[in-house]
Amino acid sequence: MVASEIRALFAVASRPEVVSLGSGMPYITALPLDVVGDLVADLVATRGSVALQYGGGQGDPALREQICEVMRLEGIEAGPDDIMVTVGSQQALDLITRIFIDPGDVVLAEGPSYAGALGTFAAYQAKVVHIAMDDQGLIPEALAQTIYALQAAGNRIKFLYTIPTFQNPAGVTLNEVRRRQVLEVCRRTGVLVVEDNPYGLLGFDGEPMRALRADDPDGVVYLGSFSKTLAPGFRVGWAVAPHAIRDKLVLAMESAVLSHSTFTQLAVGQYLTTQPWREQIKTFRELYRERRDAMLNALEVFMPPGCTWTRPAGGFFVWMTLPEGLNSKALLPRAIAERVAFVPGTGFYSDGGGTRNMRLSFCYPEPDRIKEGVRRLAGVIEQELRMRDTFGTGSIPRQGGVDTPGPDLA
Amino acid sequence: MVASEIRALFAVASRPEVVSLGSGMPYITALPLDVVGDLVADLVATRGSVALQYGGGQGDPALREQICEVMRLEGIEAGPDDIMVTVGSQQALDLITRIFIDPGDVVLAEGPSYAGALGTFAAYQAKVVHIAMDDQGLIPEALAQTIYALQAAGNRIKFLYTIPTFQNPAGVTLNEVRRRQVLEVCRRTGVLVVEDNPYGLLGFDGEPMRALRADDPDGVVYLGSFSKTLAPGFRVGWAVAPHAIRDKLVLAMESAVLSHSTFTQLAVGQYLTTQPWREQIKTFRELYRERRDAMLNALEVFMPPGCTWTRPAGGFFVWMTLPEGLNSKALLPRAIAERVAFVPGTGFYSDGGGTRNMRLSFCYPEPDRIKEGVRRLAGVIEQELRMRDTFGTGSIPRQGGVDTPGPDLA
Repeated sequence: MVASEIRALFAVASRPEVVSLGSGMPYITALPLDVVGDLVADLVATRGSVALQYGGGQGDPALREQICEVMRLEGIEAGPDDIMVTVGSQQALDLITRIFIDPGDVVLAEGPSYAGALGTFAAYQAKVVHIAMDDQGLIPEALAQTIYALQAAGNRIKFLYTIPTFQNPAGVTLNEVRRRQVLEVCRRTGVLVVEDNPYGLLGFDGEPMRALRADDPDGVVYLGSFSKTLAPGFRVGWAVAPHAIRDKLVLAMESAVLSHSTFTQLAVGQYLTTQPWREQIKTFRELYRERRDAMLNALEVFMPPGCTWTRPAGGFFVWMTLPEGLNSKALLPRAIAERVAFVPGTGFYSDGGGTRNMRLSFCYPEPDRIKEGVRRLAGVIEQELRMRDTFGTGSIPRQGGVDTPGPDLA
Repeated sequence: MVASEIRALFAVASRPEVVSLGSGMPYITALPLDVVGDLVADLVATRGSVALQYGGGQGDPALREQICEVMRLEGIEAGPDDIMVTVGSQQALDLITRIFIDPGDVVLAEGPSYAGALGTFAAYQAKVVHIAMDDQGLIPEALAQTIYALQAAGNRIKFLYTIPTFQNPAGVTLNEVRRRQVLEVCRRTGVLVVEDNPYGLLGFDGEPMRALRADDPDGVVYLGSFSKTLAPGFRVGWAVAPHAIRDKLVLAMESAVLSHSTFTQLAVGQYLTTQPWREQIKTFRELYRERRDAMLNALEVFMPPGCTWTRPAGGFFVWMTLPEGLNSKALLPRAIAERVAFVPGTGFYSDGGGTRNMRLSFCYPEPDRIKEGVRRLAGVIEQELRMRDTFGTGSIPRQGGVDTPGPDLA
């Protein structure tokens, strides 16, 4: 475990003159902060002796009821007893990995996948096998073939980790036909599905997608979060799991932290009770749609030929692929010198993949800043292309350092 | 992992007519709740865009400065960079165990010791070896002999876990001479000390004890918490560790939960900045002293001959030993039927010890209720003694179930 080169770069990148297309931080300035302030004050004044006390390991029962209501928007029918509240959905990931993984066990994940999940799988010495995806998400045939091959070779596959909707980092969404196929493949081969869905309600068009969990309550563990639909500073996420798994999760939870903060759980509950949370999500959707548009337009205008990128219908991220011969990690120091930051693609693979990719986030900067950031980045890429055309290769990344971004970039 | 018999009993015990001498919950009603409400409202209104956002894995830098000031009361000289903020000190325990323990490694702990720590050690398959204590705390000679014997037999001892001040559950405090001896033994044998100190500022007489960490910054990892000096509902604790260990802790933290709630960290920071927190701790000390006195007096008045108990100079707990032939776990259902609850001693041992012990908490009930609870408990014990004198033994506990109490009892 060494100090990360990329973190050091991002310490520089946090300066105001740098446009960060790296951060996955939601734009919480769009929240009515005075209203949130009043409701937490009211919470402490009226229910302080509960809110400031220890709570149960499974989480506040009233909040779990409200979570059921939120999940109904994605077709999920669940009861409060199916749910455990967690310290962000990251903790759910950690505890699931803790109860399922022995060193050497296999976890399947999209390639690319969420860097924070890959870090946790690595911490428990799981072997991550990536499954190919395209612009319609995970490819069911690739999933089936990989499972058969792994099982035939005697591997123990513990679960498929998937972000089916507005994926981090790729920005793509698993289509409806494939959803059924993925569930069918996993059912047939006895592979549990862990569905991570932090962005599901942040679609830019039409109704929310139906969650995988909605169609297979026994075969899917579902992870949700208020970090993107409300605010990450509360660290309130949750897991929905069949009772045998949920029982183990609650014991693991108590061993890990005793219980989550009653205060933040009740604050989220108070917000859901007293505020028009559906309208707030609509506000976020419109805000992020405008930024997505700003990014896609700027990419179209500025990027040199040979660059390709995904076109997300929701969420926070565009996934870009550089022309042959370019390396995104090598490009990062130069980009930061030009006052623009991104996350190199290698952090989203466990197998060294992603060297030609970068994750571009449109969630945090204002549209004009996004445009300016993309313009700067395009200039850096063009410079690299000239170098490649002269020397046969662009910059080569230095060796060493940890690839995964810190919490503010995850 | 089966549903716990004791938990089921405590579900009954949470009824208002039952006096709980089981719960380790602090009496937060003594806090000025309106003031706390105002300060969190102010926090959201003035710094909401930070408080509701993701934070760094090591914790809020300003809060870590303030924690240094709190720890100076116990003689600790540390800087903010030595500290990591955690989800209660339980999370610090979990992460320390995670980075140090391979299955079969040895952890030394007082006998009895904190149930929540023993549960975590067991979760990572550590082998816990208890060290004898008396009314002056851990016995240094016993510690030295145990370490020599274990090391000679080829065991890998990873650390000594100790609660030197107002111990949970025994209520005893390691005296000054022994503090030096314990540090000396551990230094000589190369055993790291993990000092858990949630109650250190809640002494009933004189100045706070000097922490072990104050005299050995390199050999001690120190765990602190605001759960007992402010409120557990924030879940804000911390670890102080040498930098090599702290680096690993921060990586483990990020893998486990990304980062702690910025909101609760800044709320604690705001409280420390704007409120007379030293006076509030004094209020708590006086409140708990009165309850300790109520409990010791009632024990003196009501308990039958043959019962013995510790006389804590701070903290939350009295540790009682029953007469020969009695079993505290067997006695619990009868006690609850008589409307009084306690935690049986076996939950505080990893080796089956504690059958004749019980932990009696004086932190939560009002003094009159404590007196009434002890009176009821004495009646149950007298009844058991009559049964023993008739049949040669008291009630026999049923087999099975998990012994450790849930979060509200830890």
